[in-house]
This record gives sequence, structure tokens and C-alpha cells, in this order.
Amino acid sequence: MSNTDNPYAEGCAWIDDGYVPIGEARIPLIDTGFTRSDLTHDVVAVWKGKFFRLEDHLERFESGWTLLRMNPPHDKDDIRKILIECVRRAQLQDAYVQMIMTRGVPLPGVRDPRMLQNRFYAFAIPYIWIFQPDQQEIGCHLVISTQTIRIPAKAVNPTIKNFHWGDLVRGLFEAYDRGGQTVLLEDGDGMVTEGPGFNVFACHDGVVRTPREGVLLGITRRTAIELATEQGIQVQEESFRSEVLRSSDEVFLTSTAGGIMPVTIIDGQPVGDGKPGPITLRLRDRYWLAHDEKRWTTVVE
Amino acid sequence: MSNTDNPYAEGCAWIDDGYVPIGEARIPLIDTGFTRSDLTHDVVAVWKGKFFRLEDHLERFESGWTLLRMNPPHDKDDIRKILIECVRRAQLQDAYVQMIMTRGVPLPGVRDPRMLQNRFYAFAIPYIWIFQPDQQEIGCHLVISTQTIRIPAKAVNPTIKNFHWGDLVRGLFEAYDRGGQTVLLEDGDGMVTEGPGFNVFACHDGVVRTPREGVLLGITRRTAIELATEQGIQVQEESFRSEVLRSSDEVFLTSTAGGIMPVTIIDGQPVGDGKPGPITLRLRDRYWLAHDEKRWTTVVE
Repeated sequence: MSNTDNPYAEGCAWIDDGYVPIGEARIPLIDTGFTRSDLTHDVVAVWKGKFFRLEDHLERFESGWTLLRMNPPHDKDDIRKILIECVRRAQLQDAYVQMIMTRGVPLPGVRDPRMLQNRFYAFAIPYIWIFQPDQQEIGCHLVISTQTIRIPAKAVNPTIKNFHWGDLVRGLFEAYDRGGQTVLLEDGDGMVTEGPGFNVFACHDGVVRTPREGVLLGITRRTAIELATEQGIQVQEESFRSEVLRSSDEVFLTSTAGGIMPVTIIDGQPVGDGKPGPITLRLRDRYWLAHDEKRWTTVVE
Repeated sequence: MSNTDNPYAEGCAWIDDGYVPIGEARIPLIDTGFTRSDLTHDVVAVWKGKFFRLEDHLERFESGWTLLRMNPPHDKDDIRKILIECVRRAQLQDAYVQMIMTRGVPLPGVRDPRMLQNRFYAFAIPYIWIFQPDQQEIGCHLVISTQTIRIPAKAVNPTIKNFHWGDLVRGLFEAYDRGGQTVLLEDGDGMVTEGPGFNVFACHDGVVRTPREGVLLGITRRTAIELATEQGIQVQEESFRSEVLRSSDEVFLTSTAGGIMPVTIIDGQPVGDGKPGPITLRLRDRYWLAHDEKRWTTVVE
């Protein structure tokens, strides 16, 4: 079958117990996953025909829906099969695969979230880069927001991966206004948190730091920590202020959508010598090599 | 046409430039209104065939999408017509009417919110009560959360009406666990904010207080303030702690979904004498009478 004959070529979704082309994938307007953003989700990558750390993503997803007290219509084994089938139908070698569990559609007049049947959606589309590989050669321009703080963990638990992006999108517009490409938010105490879809790392004299509180515990974040440790690089998970980033030798971002991505400018000022640094590049190389390692991969077919 | 013959009897939605029965109303899975909760919305009531303060709701909605820097596919005049037509088709005398403006559906690989075509959705369904009239006769049991704070305004602007309900739903589960019916959240400094879909008012020695910061400036909140002022009742918009609520003579909630609703128990303890109080009942009567006043109503047909 040629790609143009494949109705799923632009992506394949799972909706209401069936597969549909991504362009036709729709959810009920009154699903409280939409009208209350009452949901959890996860994003896993497929690279060269293999899922990367699928089991870790499934585990986090399950932990999220459990903390939200949901009773999903599918278990992890079902979900694994559905995700694989979405990628298979779309015939994607490199894919961005998202799974979403929502509270569900209320019966008329019902506002009690305990009364709803939870719903599962999923889709696979071509791999998405927060920063394309050619942009990563130069490094990206990060703005640290002065107007918007990250939603605190005491309001919304950031370790339950969610779609509460109002703060992140607001920050993104500020970053664009200030000539940047993406944004990093601080918490209410001025501590560095995260940005739209990524964690952040700072390297100082060979030591790598990343925040642990008030952020999603990203799987790419975890991978960067594990790969660094394997390479004998010291990693510290701890809170720090944005001054630490500004005075770093190297700064990088981690995300399933783009991997390990160098930051070379912060608020218009170069980071270190203004070029992607050696630790960042070493970890980035190791990161992509790891996508072929048995310990972390699941073959699609 | 009898109600059973009307395909819109359970509600009518506007999706993609057409009207559909609410049960068939669906939005794209990858609309960033869903996957980023990047949207604003508003809810207006129809009572006995008349919209209540439709122009005020439309104005707030427009203010929200402007602050989010959206370029809507419809202006206020179009939207007014669509909302009226949704109610007309559903043949509803008493309706809950919601309008939603989302950032829209990204083109493949695009993450920049400025590149998207914003989308408009709307629907009318039978009127929804946070607390039914018979429950309002007794008054409701409010729990003040000890575990979850409201998302701060510096993270997400609460005056742009939004679907970031993760904190509110989390609080609701806590309220249920503690035997309550709904929840009120404090901010990070211990000041009272709001609950899932409502503002809160406290009455002390004939003076009415309601928070002004960190909350949605609800239209029902505004109506309660205006009606109280007309009745010669003093109203103060100011921050206060939950102790003020606990020691109040009367407490009530305001929402388009239920009007002015007495709270008679807070955290298991009676408010005042444990019955809906005279100021609350007076304002509630005035509130429903106002739904027939020319200054605030728009006839559906």
C-alpha cells in the first residue's frame, strides 16, 4: 500500500472503540475532559519503528488516572495494543503518540464527577519537534517569564500530566513579544520550574542540575539523568533560581517532542559561549542512540 | 412539533458552521482548546424564554478572547444570533447556554499558537442547577479545602473564564470525602477565593462581603451586588479568610447555574442558625424576579 492510499497517513486515532483517520477524530463537545480539563494524558515517541520507554509512559499514565480516581475502560495491556495499532495503521517510522483518559460525558444535569464513565482516546501522528534538528544545531532562545508563574503543585499536581497550559501559553506569547522562541516559568517563590512541554537542565563546572518540585517528572528528564549518571556526570535534582541558568556553562531542555535540546540564548544574552555545549551534545547523542537499545524499546511490528 | 419529534430536544449545538443535536456535537481531538485548554468560554442562562444579561456575558466573552489574542471567526452579533437559534431549535424555556472560543487545530508539526485559526462552538441544553431548588430550601454543605489552593491569577487569569478546573475537581473530591456537597478553595495566602462554578458571599450584621481578587468576576456575582445595593444593603468587595465565613450570619453562593444559593453548613458546622438567612432569601427572590425585567433580558423568539 502506497502512503497516498493510506487513509491513516496523516495519523490514526482511537475513538469510541474504533480507529479513525486523525482528521476525522472527534470527541464529545461536553466531555468534561474538555469542559473541565478533567483528564490525564501521556505522550510517547516512536523512533525508527520502535517505541521509546513505552512501559514507563504507560506506568505514569496509570499512576495519573489512579490519582484522579478514574476507572478506565481499558487496562494497560489494552492501551499498549491500541497505541501500537495506531502507529501500525499510520505506517509511521517516527511518531508522536498521545493517550488521554478523560472523566467523561455527564448525563443531563449531573455535575458530580464520580458519576461519569471515564473515556480513553489515543492517536499517533508524525513525530513533532519543539525545535527541529537544524534549530538544535544553533540552539534555541529561551525567555524567562516576568509576568506569569507556573500553576503551583498545591493547585494542580504537575506530576499528573495534564492539559492545564493557560500559564504556559500566556508565557509563550510573552516570549514571542520579547524575541524568544519559548518560555520558562518560575514558581511563586522565584524558583525555576518548566516550560511548555519540557523540563530544563543547567550545567555548571560539569555538574548538571534540574528542578524536582513543581514540575512534571518527564520521562526524557529521567532519561537525561540516567544517561548522565551512566556517563559519570554528577546530577543534582534541586530547586534553583533563574540566575543559576543565566550563569550556566550550558542549558538544555528535555521533551519527548524533540529530545535533549540546547539553549544558547536566555533573554537575549548568550549562555556560556553561545554555542551548544559538550555535555548537552554528548547526552543528546546518547539519547538518540538509546532509541535502539533493547532495555528501553518496543518494536511496533 | 412535539418535543419527542424534535432532534434537538436534549440540546442543540453549533459546530463547524452548522447546528447539530447535542448528542452528536463533537470537536476535533487535536483542537488545542482541548489539548492545551487554550480557550475562553461563557455560560448564560435562559429563564422562561428570556436570556438573562446576555449582553454582559457576550461582553465578558469578547474581553476574554481579546486578552487571549484570538481572532474569532464570528463577531458578537453573529454569536448572539447563534445562541438564540440554539435555544430556539432546542425549544427550551429554561436553558444553560455555553459559548466557547478555542485556539484551534494545529497544522501538522506546528506548535506556535499564533498560527492557528480560532474556532467557535456553542450549545444550549436544559438549565443546570448546581443545587436544585429543593436542596436550596435546606441550604448546602460547603467544605473549605485544606489540601488544594485555587490556581493563582499570576498563573492563569481567572477573569478570563476558563476550563482550568483541576484544582476545583480535586477540591470537590475532598469535599465528598468529608461529607460535603461542594468545595471552596483558598489562595496561597489563606484568602477565600471561589468554588467549582460559583462565587461566595458572607453576611455579617447586615453587611455583605465577597472576594474581588483571584476569582472570576461572575455575572451572577455582579447581579447579587447590584440587587443588594438597590435594596440598601451594604456590599464590600474585599479579601477575607475562611474564619469570616465560619462566623457569618449567612453565606451564599452565586452562579449562572443555580442563581443565589444558601450555604447552611460549613465543614459540618451550621452557619448562623443553620437555615437560609433573610438577606440570602431576599436577594434570591429579587434575582429570579429580575429574570423578567426588561433591562436585563433578551427574548428568544
